[in-house]
Amino acid sequence: MKNFADRLIEKIGEKKSVVCVGLDPRLNQIPKFIKEKALKKCKNKWQAAGEAILEFNKGIIDSVHDLVPCVKPQIAFYEMYGEEGIHAYNQTIKYAKKKDLLVIADAKRNDIGSTAEAYAKAFLGEVDLFDEKKPMFDADALTVTPYLGWDGIKPFVEVCKNHGKGIFILVKTSNPSSGDIQDVCIREGNEIFDIMGQYVESWGANETGESGYSFVGAVVGATYPKQAKRLRILMPNSIFLVPGYGAQGGSAEDVKPCFNGDGLGAIVNSSRGIIFAYEKSGKYGEKDFDKAAKDAVIKMNGALNKVI
Amino acid sequence: MKNFADRLIEKIGEKKSVVCVGLDPRLNQIPKFIKEKALKKCKNKWQAAGEAILEFNKGIIDSVHDLVPCVKPQIAFYEMYGEEGIHAYNQTIKYAKKKDLLVIADAKRNDIGSTAEAYAKAFLGEVDLFDEKKPMFDADALTVTPYLGWDGIKPFVEVCKNHGKGIFILVKTSNPSSGDIQDVCIREGNEIFDIMGQYVESWGANETGESGYSFVGAVVGATYPKQAKRLRILMPNSIFLVPGYGAQGGSAEDVKPCFNGDGLGAIVNSSRGIIFAYEKSGKYGEKDFDKAAKDAVIKMNGALNKVI
Repeated sequence: MKNFADRLIEKIGEKKSVVCVGLDPRLNQIPKFIKEKALKKCKNKWQAAGEAILEFNKGIIDSVHDLVPCVKPQIAFYEMYGEEGIHAYNQTIKYAKKKDLLVIADAKRNDIGSTAEAYAKAFLGEVDLFDEKKPMFDADALTVTPYLGWDGIKPFVEVCKNHGKGIFILVKTSNPSSGDIQDVCIREGNEIFDIMGQYVESWGANETGESGYSFVGAVVGATYPKQAKRLRILMPNSIFLVPGYGAQGGSAEDVKPCFNGDGLGAIVNSSRGIIFAYEKSGKYGEKDFDKAAKDAVIKMNGALNKVI
Repeated sequence: MKNFADRLIEKIGEKKSVVCVGLDPRLNQIPKFIKEKALKKCKNKWQAAGEAILEFNKGIIDSVHDLVPCVKPQIAFYEMYGEEGIHAYNQTIKYAKKKDLLVIADAKRNDIGSTAEAYAKAFLGEVDLFDEKKPMFDADALTVTPYLGWDGIKPFVEVCKNHGKGIFILVKTSNPSSGDIQDVCIREGNEIFDIMGQYVESWGANETGESGYSFVGAVVGATYPKQAKRLRILMPNSIFLVPGYGAQGGSAEDVKPCFNGDGLGAIVNSSRGIIFAYEKSGKYGEKDFDKAAKDAVIKMNGALNKVI
């Protein structure tokens, strides 16, 4: 089974892009014409919510799939619609994979070992279904929280190894309060996010592929370039998933320290800035949400490829 | 809207129990007769998995609902069956509430503010459904991870305040590697779990009900009694949700430090030790899984009520 890091780097090369498109389909920002069609078609509003989300995602995917290596559906915006939302989540993953995209399930799951194993099987491996084993979400990678330590991470690593999948562990997140825990200082120049970085590096040390990168990646926010610089040195073999570009304030210059000298080692996510670009576009109306997204991706690819 | 802490303490008084029954329905441990019935009834195995889980849970709930204040369904074991699993999760919550139980959704969710809000609405509040707002899972409380700091917690606190719900934030977890991050030492006698405890206490300081307890609770593992003792002093107003009793090794004596002098301040969870008690019972076969669970609850109530 090919290492996830190698698969990702191959795809980055093919598409000449380090952009990840975040599929966070907030219902109130989905174009009206999609919602009206879904409401007409479906038997109730929950089903219509799932249908509208899926239709919107398909439009975005069709429009950007040849321009980026991966997409990252954030599960909160799906599971809020219960089983209908989860149906849309699963169908979105299948559709994106068919369109030659890698899919990072952004679910930030974690628990004690035996429960983490259930999450790992659900998102990345195969679940026990009576006398069979079957894939459920079958994403290419998953975001994972680290607060429980190694035995909450190990089941993910094992499933990744057997199925050519990857994880991105939260190290330094992009939000304003990320320092509450992550910046707690052990001694000068050694904060909790450093400790997490050291863990991630060691957890992934034996999991590198031919590219030299590991399938155990790290989430490092675009909004903290100084910390990113330190983490890049600390974790030379980890791929960074970098949220916080655009709507959250991170610029192309800000994410530069997330990359290695080879121009690799990170993928930069934008969600709202791409999928809802139509709202701030002087050029496109809501009918052309997909074209507005495509333009935003082209612009982001250009900005990033210039600095790395 | 009545404070969740008050609602929980009232229920503890009614049932004379501080036990929480963990509904972690691992399919391979559910009695065969339930699975066979589900496979006959349903059109595919995914649906049968959801059906078997729900039937099993109903049996457990019917058997223990008058003996405990609350149940805690761990969502990993449901979402691994996708939309059918989520359907079973939702129906389990509804059924337990109808049977006069409080429901703690064990999902350990968290993210940056705008995404945390989506989780908060989904599990505890009301979601935006086109022109309406509707409850989705509508649990009484939710477990939450803390790695992102205050802005990932605030949306949960706000939804709790408006809907009489609660959260339990991971402080010191029950698993063997919990120390990897949680025991990192800032200075002697001051570890990361202490810092988390201080945060939880301050985040819940204004959220106390008539009981004096706050709806911002903490997860504190039964397997670490020394740390629990320190945390009990640090967080006098927080209710501890205590996992790790039984199968994970925690005893009644171990959980004693989680309680205040008033015999309140904690609920102790057992999952496998109760719901799959039939497997280790010399007395009951799988047909009587519900009776075995009831016996295990009575025993656990007795052991805990003796020490608190």
